Amino acid sequence: MPQVNLADLNAGGQGDFVAALGNVFEHSAWIAEGAALRRPFAGIAALFGAMKDMVEHASSERRLALIKAHPDLANKTQRAAGLTAESNAEQAGAGLDRLSDAEYDAFERVNNAYRAKFGFPYIVCVRRHSKDSILRDFERRLPNDAAAEMKASIAEIFRIAALRLDQLVAAEDRLPVNGRLSTHVLDTHSGKPAAGIAVELIELSELGESRVVTRAITNADGRTDQPLIGGCPVPIGRYELSFSVGRYFAERGVPLSDPPFLDQIPLRFAVSEPEGHLHVPLLVTPWGYTTYRGS
Amino acid sequence: MPQVNLADLNAGGQGDFVAALGNVFEHSAWIAEGAALRRPFAGIAALFGAMKDMVEHASSERRLALIKAHPDLANKTQRAAGLTAESNAEQAGAGLDRLSDAEYDAFERVNNAYRAKFGFPYIVCVRRHSKDSILRDFERRLPNDAAAEMKASIAEIFRIAALRLDQLVAAEDRLPVNGRLSTHVLDTHSGKPAAGIAVELIELSELGESRVVTRAITNADGRTDQPLIGGCPVPIGRYELSFSVGRYFAERGVPLSDPPFLDQIPLRFAVSEPEGHLHVPLLVTPWGYTTYRGS
Amino acid sequence: MPQVNLADLNAGGQGDFVAALGNVFEHSAWIAEGAALRRPFAGIAALFGAMKDMVEHASSERRLALIKAHPDLANKTQRAAGLTAESNAEQAGAGLDRLSDAEYDAFERVNNAYRAKFGFPYIVCVRRHSKDSILRDFERRLPNDAAAEMKASIAEIFRIAALRLDQLVAAEDRLPVNGRLSTHVLDTHSGKPAAGIAVELIELSELGESRVVTRAITNADGRTDQPLIGGCPVPIGRYELSFSVGRYFAERGVPLSDPPFLDQIPLRFAVSEPEGHLHVPLLVTPWGYTTYRGS
Amino acid sequence: MPQVNLADLNAGGQGDFVAALGNVFEHSAWIAEGAALRRPFAGIAALFGAMKDMVEHASSERRLALIKAHPDLANKTQRAAGLTAESNAEQAGAGLDRLSDAEYDAFERVNNAYRAKFGFPYIVCVRRHSKDSILRDFERRLPNDAAAEMKASIAEIFRIAALRLDQLVAAEDRLPVNGRLSTHVLDTHSGKPAAGIAVELIELSELGESRVVTRAITNADGRTDQPLIGGCPVPIGRYELSFSVGRYFAERGVPLSDPPFLDQIPLRFAVSEPEGHLHVPLLVTPWGYTTYRGS
Repeated sequence: MPQVNLADLNAGGQGDFVAALGNVFEHSAWIAEGAALRRPFAGIAALFGAMKDMVEHASSERRLALIKAHPDLANKTQRAAGLTAESNAEQAGAGLDRLSDAEYDAFERVNNAYRAKFGFPYIVCVRRHSKDSILRDFERRLPNDAAAEMKASIAEIFRIAALRLDQLVAAEDRLPVNGRLSTHVLDTHSGKPAAGIAVELIELSELGESRVVTRAITNADGRTDQPLIGGCPVPIGRYELSFSVGRYFAERGVPLSDPPFLDQIPLRFAVSEPEGHLHVPLLVTPWGYTTYRGS
Repeated sequence: MPQVNLADLNAGGQGDFVAALGNVFEHSAWIAEGAALRRPFAGIAALFGAMKDMVEHASSERRLALIKAHPDLANKTQRAAGLTAESNAEQAGAGLDRLSDAEYDAFERVNNAYRAKFGFPYIVCVRRHSKDSILRDFERRLPNDAAAEMKASIAEIFRIAALRLDQLVAAEDRLPVNGRLSTHVLDTHSGKPAAGIAVELIELSELGESRVVTRAITNADGRTDQPLIGGCPVPIGRYELSFSVGRYFAERGVPLSDPPFLDQIPLRFAVSEPEGHLHVPLLVTPWGYTTYRGS
Repeated sequence: MPQVNLADLNAGGQGDFVAALGNVFEHSAWIAEGAALRRPFAGIAALFGAMKDMVEHASSERRLALIKAHPDLANKTQRAAGLTAESNAEQAGAGLDRLSDAEYDAFERVNNAYRAKFGFPYIVCVRRHSKDSILRDFERRLPNDAAAEMKASIAEIFRIAALRLDQLVAAEDRLPVNGRLSTHVLDTHSGKPAAGIAVELIELSELGESRVVTRAITNADGRTDQPLIGGCPVPIGRYELSFSVGRYFAERGVPLSDPPFLDQIPLRFAVSEPEGHLHVPLLVTPWGYTTYRGS
Repeated sequence: MPQVNLADLNAGGQGDFVAALGNVFEHSAWIAEGAALRRPFAGIAALFGAMKDMVEHASSERRLALIKAHPDLANKTQRAAGLTAESNAEQAGAGLDRLSDAEYDAFERVNNAYRAKFGFPYIVCVRRHSKDSILRDFERRLPNDAAAEMKASIAEIFRIAALRLDQLVAAEDRLPVNGRLSTHVLDTHSGKPAAGIAVELIELSELGESRVVTRAITNADGRTDQPLIGGCPVPIGRYELSFSVGRYFAERGVPLSDPPFLDQIPLRFAVSEPEGHLHVPLLVTPWGYTTYRGS
């Protein structure tokens, strides 16, 4: 729910602008201050462009300070001491506030190894990732040199800021920060959309426990009333969609074997583009099925 | 590997016949003794028919004694005291000799509840079942009356005996006791059989741990060199076939997303006809797949 | 394009109302006259309900006269003498104005046989049918008795009138007279919608020549910009959708056999519900494809 | 049906050998004469190798004479004057003895254009081709230079000779000259092979009329008792397989729309490897289907 209108930001005082947008970049209100001077903005994309300009034209000392202003991931001590509300919400959204001890240890090793090599915290836009993919991202980036990681960190900071800004400011345009994951069940035994199928989306994890992301029942069109994931990035990661087709066909009186050949159908797939629209449909009879990456 | 030829059984002495076939029906050599008088047999089906005749025309006391001659399932005490070699091998084949404590407890409850109601042991042809389906079979049969369970027990004893006889005696015909489970992977991205795909067959269990039944690599024809299960009944139960398609396509240089949309594909299905031929193929590209119950 | 607003019909004089709607029922302005007395109407459904009431409460003589007011199908003499503009347009839309001689003969036999048996013309809502399905409808109805055919004729007249009224009058609601036929091509070789595929929809005919209904090119989403058929009933009949997939894959540099295994893919299907939404997608690689009735 | 055993050819006189194999290469008994000196042959592959050696080591004059010994394709005058029995049978097998006038004209143009450019006849192994693919082959080869076409002609002559030899001589090995085309219908509505489906294989032609290659009914395993094409090369060309699924489902009492959504399903595909095994299955419900190139 955006909290402020772009029109008001354009018309208001500089202090109000900075008060509203000061934390879009973590602990770095100077970026909002600089952007305020370039008002008015035709849209949120223009506003975000001005904020990015501030960072890109800043001195390398200031960019390093921006990077260092970010907290460690999943750091209990920092959490106790207090994060920005934004960081707190983002880490909670990615489940980083309720890790198992083993997971906390894994993240602590990541943070320490990264900080030891580069002298600044490991930054990643956690809303675009599952826990597993954060660790994979880390493993890819750790071998880099400092210049590459400065650049990578700024890129992640821009992603974090874009998501914060898009949630904060109402304008006629939107930043392209959100994706969607949806499904659709076609009953090719009866030639109709499959209504009333229980669907469960699970985020798989090698690191810790898999977790249920959402549960839904298909409607008369064979779809879920809401996207399985929508209005946010779809976290990079591996997922399982599970469909209760055995019960569905049994309730319709379709002759089945005992036990039914197909009962709970799992589809396992990975998300690689958090801002994309990913559609994973199921075409199903009691004796076979087809799935594919749709759009 | 059959141990004796039907021709030799036909030509030999009655004592040899009974020595060879005395345990086809558990601790009940009188059945072989009676059948011996009807030699020679044109085939194993005729031989088995004669043995069944003995049971079907026996007094109900004798049939009850036959039933009572069978051991409890998964009974540690009886195992320690010694089962027939046949019972021992059959229970081991179904994994009943290596149960967890919780599973032993579940089977003990089953045996006791059944014996308390009917006064004779719960008999089921374990080679046709997974652990889960034995418990489901029990739950279905426990509400029956004694007459129905006498009948059901004899039917199971016939199934046990048919499997023992088919393994023991070489003849020109075979008893229809064995099934087959097979797979086939078609790469519809390249239009060729998918060779070199790692396949794993897992027996799923609600009761205890799932267990790997077999692992294989697909050959140049996209099949496994041996059936996944063959030369025996395919145990009634729920299974997962898992295919390593991510690695397969990556090794062929096919452009994939990161992580790959499809990596390890699970197909979950149930077996309901242990003597049937069940074929579960996979038609796959990096972006979708189809499976169905084939034959 | 509706030519008159319901609000104007409600507010205007009775004469204007009848002038506007007098031909909704062929040569039977008395129906509009009667309905005019029940103004105002909350919507087009209410208006149509009032017109149907007039027919349903009319004497059987009047209903017979209504039936007899309709022209024969595809009758050259009547066409020369002049039909209502509405009948003319409807018959032209169904291709009944450009029949081969053999087809004219077939329709003439239908008309004559029907009129000889019942004494009134064979009436069918031609916009809901292909030529083939008109003849099938006739063959089904000819064995009926007169009472059944009176009823069937009125039902067809209501369908004709509903379509005329829906096209004529703009209101907030619509009559449920229109259907839609659409397609979608998913390239499961690349995991993306197939853009730039030439699609052709052909109405198949046993009677005469098949005819191309429409041609289109799939857009970036693998769909056609417009439905293949939309904004009207989808005529009952048999169709072929043809997709130029050979060229599509060749242009993308995908390795193909020579000649390509799949080149022009025909999907043949029938439409049975003119007011329904029928979606016929194609999931395709160079080596295989899937289609199904979607929604 | 081979007419002579390799053992007899090895053991017999040279005259018998040449009498038997003199026409394996058209009007060129010198090849058999030379090969006879290298007897005995361990198998038909060795025998064919020796015959090819004769050609490959012959002078270019002799090779040209071998080429010129071949008749024109589909030449009425030569047919009237008499071809070798082998040429006659081969051209008849490819349908070149029953061409329409337009087709005769097309082939005559091909022969004349080719002969005018190269001074020798256009040679192609017609048993590996449909009429359309012969013309495509010609269009590809005509732009070549004479050296390339000498080579191409010899390659085609080897293919012709291999087929003649494989048909003529019985040995323990076979030459790899034959392919196979098969189908399989799986009813994924009932989960069983689809028995009793009428199947028709049609060779499509742009040049003239399409022709029915074979008709069959699927057996209890959903297959045809004989391959659709087998025991010979599968001619390069375009085909349509047509399956009567509407009748199949109607006879089983499956609820269908009227007319049925799917009735006669056409699968169109091309054959590119005459010696390969091509399997074109159909997975079908009343509301959708899947096909793919199997093996």
